[in-house]
Amino acid sequence: MIKDDDKTRTSRRRFLAGATGLTAGLAAAGVTGVAQANDKNLPPNVADWSKSLGDGVAVRPYGHPSKFEKNVIRRDVQWLTASRESSVSFTPLHDLDGIITPNGLCFERHHGGIAEVDPHDYRLMIHGLVERPLIFTLEDLKRLPRVNKIYFLECAANSGMEWRGAQLNGCQYTHGMIHCVQYTGVPLKLLLEQAGVKPNGKWLLVEGGDASGLDRSLPLEKALDDCMIAYRMNGEMLRPEQGYPARLVVPGWQGNMWIKWIRRIKVGDQPWYTREETSKYTDLMPSGKARKFTFEMDAKSVITSPSPQAPLTRKGFTVISGLAWTGRGKVKRVDVSLDGGRNWRTAKIDGPVLDKACVRFYAEIEWNGEPLLLQSRAMDETGYVQPTKDALRKIRGVNSIYHNNGIQTWALKANGEVENVEVG
Amino acid sequence: MIKDDDKTRTSRRRFLAGATGLTAGLAAAGVTGVAQANDKNLPPNVADWSKSLGDGVAVRPYGHPSKFEKNVIRRDVQWLTASRESSVSFTPLHDLDGIITPNGLCFERHHGGIAEVDPHDYRLMIHGLVERPLIFTLEDLKRLPRVNKIYFLECAANSGMEWRGAQLNGCQYTHGMIHCVQYTGVPLKLLLEQAGVKPNGKWLLVEGGDASGLDRSLPLEKALDDCMIAYRMNGEMLRPEQGYPARLVVPGWQGNMWIKWIRRIKVGDQPWYTREETSKYTDLMPSGKARKFTFEMDAKSVITSPSPQAPLTRKGFTVISGLAWTGRGKVKRVDVSLDGGRNWRTAKIDGPVLDKACVRFYAEIEWNGEPLLLQSRAMDETGYVQPTKDALRKIRGVNSIYHNNGIQTWALKANGEVENVEVG
Repeated sequence: MIKDDDKTRTSRRRFLAGATGLTAGLAAAGVTGVAQANDKNLPPNVADWSKSLGDGVAVRPYGHPSKFEKNVIRRDVQWLTASRESSVSFTPLHDLDGIITPNGLCFERHHGGIAEVDPHDYRLMIHGLVERPLIFTLEDLKRLPRVNKIYFLECAANSGMEWRGAQLNGCQYTHGMIHCVQYTGVPLKLLLEQAGVKPNGKWLLVEGGDASGLDRSLPLEKALDDCMIAYRMNGEMLRPEQGYPARLVVPGWQGNMWIKWIRRIKVGDQPWYTREETSKYTDLMPSGKARKFTFEMDAKSVITSPSPQAPLTRKGFTVISGLAWTGRGKVKRVDVSLDGGRNWRTAKIDGPVLDKACVRFYAEIEWNGEPLLLQSRAMDETGYVQPTKDALRKIRGVNSIYHNNGIQTWALKANGEVENVEVG
Repeated sequence: MIKDDDKTRTSRRRFLAGATGLTAGLAAAGVTGVAQANDKNLPPNVADWSKSLGDGVAVRPYGHPSKFEKNVIRRDVQWLTASRESSVSFTPLHDLDGIITPNGLCFERHHGGIAEVDPHDYRLMIHGLVERPLIFTLEDLKRLPRVNKIYFLECAANSGMEWRGAQLNGCQYTHGMIHCVQYTGVPLKLLLEQAGVKPNGKWLLVEGGDASGLDRSLPLEKALDDCMIAYRMNGEMLRPEQGYPARLVVPGWQGNMWIKWIRRIKVGDQPWYTREETSKYTDLMPSGKARKFTFEMDAKSVITSPSPQAPLTRKGFTVISGLAWTGRGKVKRVDVSLDGGRNWRTAKIDGPVLDKACVRFYAEIEWNGEPLLLQSRAMDETGYVQPTKDALRKIRGVNSIYHNNGIQTWALKANGEVENVEVG
């Protein structure tokens, strides 16, 4: 088992150290509050921050999190990749709740580092099997009809290290190649209609403007269905790490098709079989053959708290919190197990349930200190149920690092710590 | 007419300067693209950023916007208030789209500056007419059942300068005391149930931990309906400017009731008539008497683009974009006028329509360069229709600076500039 990195350990020690001292509130309900505190700031004393004026407005024209939240960051695992320019940093899912990911914490996956695109020089070209080849500036795109959609984006390699057993000790690392934001952008259909796709046009080559020139083949049918050229996330312009000033949005499909810094769309009559859709991002089966394209991300879920980076510090009432999603529509139900999948209870889904977006689920338990094997499984509106890892391995073997949507197990120990494990 | 501040002027000059040069795309549809550009980066040349590796992952563990978006910031108007500690900075609505406000751009309104609360020392006390006085730590709150809700938050003084005529030249300043995020927190009902409100308990005094000790009276009925003690916004912990680590959420009601850095809830049998709900935040009528409490924010809307800070740079196809909201439930319809309210067309609402949240509306026009008087009006599910400013003034006079939800008019001039005006 590979332990999480040093930063995570530091964070955990701090949290556990904090869990001693003054007790308060809700004792009757089995919920007691503890925190390491300075008595001078506690009632009936007046706290330091109530005694003098704080910073005024516009001292921070663009705001940042509290200094006390400095451990809530994207993290990478340096041994995973040879370079940081072609690598990944993970969303700290264990430190978040709700369904929206704040822009500063959306995971990164680059193949040639972050392209720093000057928006005045940005161009998107559409050519190939079209009546009118077109080049769009950013202002062109921003002037067109647009839509606002909340979608999850999951990398095909999310949970990829877990094919061969429990590897990474924290949901940030096992499941953190996902985020969920509101995108604003132009329906790709509208751009293609302007260009006029010729009758034999069936596929698009979509290409990024970064140093890797990442390119993929996209079926025209999907492009005309719900794809967007997005230039905003959560209201503001895209972040550089997410493809500023414009990226492709391919709802429900694997993340590396969501081309960042998109510069070119070529219409053709068949797929191109590029590197990133043949030797990479395909499922290598036990036979040694790879499946031809696995676009859609199947239903999946993970308990984000408690989890290895978010241990329990007290017995009593606890809310299990987690995320679920499916690339095939809406999540219909999420179940939670405390005993490694023998018994299941239906979790409560709270907040909006949107097409191809994350949902938040909760399950309340009274924890008496006994060890538990925590699991969650998602079911989507097609009737598909998230499988066990073993069920996946029976079909797919362990050659692949992609499309692992197996059920995750967290072992909650008597001392409140949580470990990534697998059950028979 | 007071012009916008220097930063805004700089931004506008830059935008207009950019609107010359290379033309591209969509000419057939009357839409043409222009931007000041370096030829070396344009097709068929390979752009600079495609030629070498960019920054790798985790170089920015917590991400920031592109350096090219540095003008997208909260701004204050220094002559509006005597100090920056008791002042306001405004959300740049003209630079945003969709319904979610990114956390770094949510407007600020402080009465004693930003309290810098150590989360270990944070306490929330509930006392007064209760069976069991309680003190909650932050960990207590985070351990309890929680809900996720997207709500708008509007300051009662939003558009307040406009009572006496068109004053501030930009929707950032006229309407920017609003934001809309997903909150995660504990239903206040749950905390009050733990404390056990006595039969004669009918009102709550809610008090902030900042230097102003901002306090308001909240009817128990509203507290038990949909109020929350929120500790997260858009997934992550609250920002310091928004009450870190915990604030009161009072859906649909005026912003200064949403007590930040909340430290105390006292249950009583009648309102307290504190300073901030008597001499301030009430509607001073022509008679010289003030209305007793105006909690709910009525239906309102504003066109965010085009607007004084977001002028038009070209004739032809343009999308009018705006925000609408109501404190009384859901927005049902938004209309747009091009001629100062004589004729109306129904706008398209795009994105989720949620209870007490902002909605985004669009109206497409073909602009041939003629001057227009742009207006929008919102209608909510109660049948209420956003009134004209004149209709409001007939009832309320011009003594108040609060609760101005009148229809905003933007004069679009032949050169594409936009000005804040009044009609009729």
